[in-house]
Amino acid sequence: MIVEMRRGASREEIDAVAERAKSLGLDVQMNLGTDKTVVAILGSNTGKLQTDIFGVLPGVESVTRIMKPYKLASREFHNADAVVKVNGVEIGGKRITVMAGPCAVESESQLSKSAEIVKAAGAKILRGGAFKPRTSPFSFQGLKKEGLELLRRVHREYGMPVISEVTDTQEVQEMSEYCDILQVGSRNMQNFVLLSAVGRAGCPVVLKRGFSCTVTEWLTAADYILAEGNNQVILCERGIRTFEDSTRFSLDISSIPVIKRASYLPLIVDPSHAAGHYALVPALAKAAIAAGADGLLIEVHPNPKEALVDGLQSLTPSDFGRLMRELKPIAEAVGRTI
Amino acid sequence: MIVEMRRGASREEIDAVAERAKSLGLDVQMNLGTDKTVVAILGSNTGKLQTDIFGVLPGVESVTRIMKPYKLASREFHNADAVVKVNGVEIGGKRITVMAGPCAVESESQLSKSAEIVKAAGAKILRGGAFKPRTSPFSFQGLKKEGLELLRRVHREYGMPVISEVTDTQEVQEMSEYCDILQVGSRNMQNFVLLSAVGRAGCPVVLKRGFSCTVTEWLTAADYILAEGNNQVILCERGIRTFEDSTRFSLDISSIPVIKRASYLPLIVDPSHAAGHYALVPALAKAAIAAGADGLLIEVHPNPKEALVDGLQSLTPSDFGRLMRELKPIAEAVGRTI
Amino acid sequence: MIVEMRRGASREEIDAVAERAKSLGLDVQMNLGTDKTVVAILGSNTGKLQTDIFGVLPGVESVTRIMKPYKLASREFHNADAVVKVNGVEIGGKRITVMAGPCAVESESQLSKSAEIVKAAGAKILRGGAFKPRTSPFSFQGLKKEGLELLRRVHREYGMPVISEVTDTQEVQEMSEYCDILQVGSRNMQNFVLLSAVGRAGCPVVLKRGFSCTVTEWLTAADYILAEGNNQVILCERGIRTFEDSTRFSLDISSIPVIKRASYLPLIVDPSHAAGHYALVPALAKAAIAAGADGLLIEVHPNPKEALVDGLQSLTPSDFGRLMRELKPIAEAVGRTI
Amino acid sequence: MIVEMRRGASREEIDAVAERAKSLGLDVQMNLGTDKTVVAILGSNTGKLQTDIFGVLPGVESVTRIMKPYKLASREFHNADAVVKVNGVEIGGKRITVMAGPCAVESESQLSKSAEIVKAAGAKILRGGAFKPRTSPFSFQGLKKEGLELLRRVHREYGMPVISEVTDTQEVQEMSEYCDILQVGSRNMQNFVLLSAVGRAGCPVVLKRGFSCTVTEWLTAADYILAEGNNQVILCERGIRTFEDSTRFSLDISSIPVIKRASYLPLIVDPSHAAGHYALVPALAKAAIAAGADGLLIEVHPNPKEALVDGLQSLTPSDFGRLMRELKPIAEAVGRTI
Repeated sequence: MIVEMRRGASREEIDAVAERAKSLGLDVQMNLGTDKTVVAILGSNTGKLQTDIFGVLPGVESVTRIMKPYKLASREFHNADAVVKVNGVEIGGKRITVMAGPCAVESESQLSKSAEIVKAAGAKILRGGAFKPRTSPFSFQGLKKEGLELLRRVHREYGMPVISEVTDTQEVQEMSEYCDILQVGSRNMQNFVLLSAVGRAGCPVVLKRGFSCTVTEWLTAADYILAEGNNQVILCERGIRTFEDSTRFSLDISSIPVIKRASYLPLIVDPSHAAGHYALVPALAKAAIAAGADGLLIEVHPNPKEALVDGLQSLTPSDFGRLMRELKPIAEAVGRTI
Repeated sequence: MIVEMRRGASREEIDAVAERAKSLGLDVQMNLGTDKTVVAILGSNTGKLQTDIFGVLPGVESVTRIMKPYKLASREFHNADAVVKVNGVEIGGKRITVMAGPCAVESESQLSKSAEIVKAAGAKILRGGAFKPRTSPFSFQGLKKEGLELLRRVHREYGMPVISEVTDTQEVQEMSEYCDILQVGSRNMQNFVLLSAVGRAGCPVVLKRGFSCTVTEWLTAADYILAEGNNQVILCERGIRTFEDSTRFSLDISSIPVIKRASYLPLIVDPSHAAGHYALVPALAKAAIAAGADGLLIEVHPNPKEALVDGLQSLTPSDFGRLMRELKPIAEAVGRTI
Repeated sequence: MIVEMRRGASREEIDAVAERAKSLGLDVQMNLGTDKTVVAILGSNTGKLQTDIFGVLPGVESVTRIMKPYKLASREFHNADAVVKVNGVEIGGKRITVMAGPCAVESESQLSKSAEIVKAAGAKILRGGAFKPRTSPFSFQGLKKEGLELLRRVHREYGMPVISEVTDTQEVQEMSEYCDILQVGSRNMQNFVLLSAVGRAGCPVVLKRGFSCTVTEWLTAADYILAEGNNQVILCERGIRTFEDSTRFSLDISSIPVIKRASYLPLIVDPSHAAGHYALVPALAKAAIAAGADGLLIEVHPNPKEALVDGLQSLTPSDFGRLMRELKPIAEAVGRTI
Repeated sequence: MIVEMRRGASREEIDAVAERAKSLGLDVQMNLGTDKTVVAILGSNTGKLQTDIFGVLPGVESVTRIMKPYKLASREFHNADAVVKVNGVEIGGKRITVMAGPCAVESESQLSKSAEIVKAAGAKILRGGAFKPRTSPFSFQGLKKEGLELLRRVHREYGMPVISEVTDTQEVQEMSEYCDILQVGSRNMQNFVLLSAVGRAGCPVVLKRGFSCTVTEWLTAADYILAEGNNQVILCERGIRTFEDSTRFSLDISSIPVIKRASYLPLIVDPSHAAGHYALVPALAKAAIAAGADGLLIEVHPNPKEALVDGLQSLTPSDFGRLMRELKPIAEAVGRTI
């Protein structure tokens, strides 16, 4: 941590900073400049300390953190890329993994048609929401328990692992019995009680990025799951909120190379929620693979016109089939398969 | 809802939009321009409909919502300003209500000193966190149950209602027995399961704005609580995330007059979390009152240098006392008392 | 334009809106709902009208624009993709065009080495700044006139067209004699006087996106150049400002498919300014090609450690060579060459 | 400047950083931690250096700037608050200065009525745009030269100094003869050639904040004007671009106390452009004064319904009169007059 003193800070103020650091078992190095004094505070654990501890002392101008606040999710902690295995499907290996299906589970026939379509096109994992977090209480909230049972039935019929979103700590146990992967949605990325609960559940977790959270906050949220001993964490970029209004969110394509340098966890991309419009999904999916993503999470609906939720961003079966064929040479161009 | 057709959309495409609307019991008005056709879809419930239902149809360029998606929180629903009463203290009336206290409950002596200080200076409600949502799992997470008991004890001793943050549905019942007001934090504004749960708990709720949520999303989140029959909802502006990095968040001062036009719910402001630095808190508190806020939620600590959480944004007892005196003439200038 | 009246707006207020529209030669269609009245205002020119004209009338709740404010840059105006030709090099055709070179022209040897390197690797156009807009007046401001002369000399020696940034209307004439393409930088995207001046200059223009401008504002800015009769406009996405701080800007990858739908103008991407760090540039460059960009603008320096400006985001000669080889199969995967 | 080395950086890499710093005449202090090495680079001029110089070296993880990049605008450079005097009117003193008038000069009668109205209500300076920077080339661009002449005529008639926006270096000389204060608009805040030109013109300048520029960038832009020896610089906060869409921009109220700590320059606030709607202007104006602004820049039009530009955000004469009366007790509450 670097503490910059105000111009004209007194010797007593500078010493008080040093003493506070020493009282916490930290080392101190003074940089007495002609204009300003800068105090470097050193130790292996400064990433855990609040900068406020020093910022609040008299004569301090600013405090800058050097160590990142996350630890378990860091590549410094675990250098080799992790591969998460789900019923024989790998996420994070050489093969790009595509998870696809409808936004919401609506009926057995809808889900089973979806599974057939996405499996035939090459997707390995089926997505479908049973508990739907909706911005308005008057919107369709999902089939809940019935949706979970449909997911399990279709899982058995098609032999595809399923992923579904968990929205409350009280559902974690039950959902982990019905689903192969639990998804923590964007709006819950900093629901820390839920993160700990899915950590304890011990099953694979897709952690979607909060739509207004930095990469650093995202990796620190992953630490909550990892801290419970669950290392089957898959990150999912899904767009951030910006001023641009021609798309629902702005896919942060740069987060792919940034995460690949900072962390060892697998990273997939959801182009559907980022774009908000089916016509933009293929370009974003291709960009994600070219930039180094390990997989995709795509909304596909047998008949988007009749979808209860997010029909506009769902691909039709034929559009999804075409996209999967178009992704193949791009995956190969970056040394991977799909 | 206004559906703009693409230039050159066919008569069949235009008719399909109209038929979809009629099948939902809505009225349709065609505006056949020379360049473009625009279809107006009318009905009292279009605020609840997803725009996707039309956006997904062939030949549609864009869909614009005219009705707001929120309903119960709207001034159109309930014209007169609401006043929430908590143990004899009113929020939303002529008097500005100040809630103050430490970010986290740390000990009986810390909490009780805090209550003494803020009560003497004119605050009517004591704040203090027992369950602390922290970005890192390695940071202090609050005293939890012990913190709740300290809040109740100090409540009795000083006769001040207390407010504390609830972070999980499983805590709602217990917390509503210990606290007079439940606070839903910024990171949980779209934790819809929690919103419904505090709605059912039936006690007053402070709903903080999600730091990246629009005013419209905030009022729609309030609908979740109101839909359970709980109309004791107090909104709290606490800053939004922007590119500016000289403050922790950017206080959206404009949300005050915007909310006052759009909703009848009382609105308070938290200048402490917005600023992130004690030196900026007084200016923001004054601005909030001048702009029409009904109250303030301010962090005060008997000794910020020793605070376990957010010391840098906490006011000292003397700074808080001075601020309360300085707020008085501003409240009077806008026709209120404090 | 859609004018939503306030609930309870009077008949007089509604009529006043209609009369204002008719006085401007526009058609009006009334949608008298049970709750609200919505007035649709129709005509071929409503994209040019300010929404304020109606917003200011009594009883009006909001005004929504349906027509886009840009016209000349719209695909509705000109359906076929434009191809800009510069000394035999095409931008916007089947071949991906790469423009590369140093951020700033520093010396003859630096520029000439740069040209040699980027030409050998397959770039077709040489970039180099002579007038450098810098955030601080105390930073290196470019070689100015001397830089222009070096650009011309190196142009002749290597037979590569050159692009350089113009920062003031008084430089436009002279720069258009020295350079093959004029670049309008991000900070000048809404310097409308400059846009008109480069429009009148008649030479090809690269219009970089303002780092906080929407796609709609960007295309409307292009209208300024096109309105002068200069249709050799090339758009350049270079990242937008968001809250994310791990990159200098956030490359808005979605703008590529959005622009391709909305406009017929060629679009290139500058991954260097978006990333701000050389290690992230290759992933972004690949993503841009996969998403459908027509070209790239990349910073390359013979020795980034000695660069006077933006060394951190410049590729070394060997990194640039490797990137060009890696881009080849991606270009082919999307049906293009490079 | 603080250079953080990568974990496992070699001794040679660390030494290379130190040598680069010494070659630039800077002092170096090594902080060899157990996990990481951090190199502090010290000197009075590090604010001017690019962080890239070190970021580009092998083994470097990140570089953090401690010194601010601006110098002349800093309170460290000039401690006492500056007061700018314009024909006997002071900006930055105890009295709050209000500048008001129409967005655009439209005619002699409109301008002269405006002057009469705002003068009677207590404004000291008349605003009015002659050269209007508009997002679309098809919108009204201002009366230009004729507008300047009207400003001068009305200035004489009413004895009020006038302020008007300058949009191009070629207009600076002429405009400085017609106007008492030159305004640099938000979209030109980083038009550095224009900043230098108004610096050389030597007359008072209102520098509006770029709507996506940080406070630090804003003060660094002020350095361009100050570096020419022109110290009559007045800063103007006018809202920043965020995701919130209920206002045109988000007034960054926090910038007021932040600027007051960081700089000695006077600071005014434009609530009209921030809000974009007349009904929100009074609340923002009051908040600005309560937070410590030195003045206001407000749009007033004799008849907003007929305004050619920005009618929706213009106050009517009676609304402006009421606001001025309501501001009086707030100014007094913060120890000022108006």
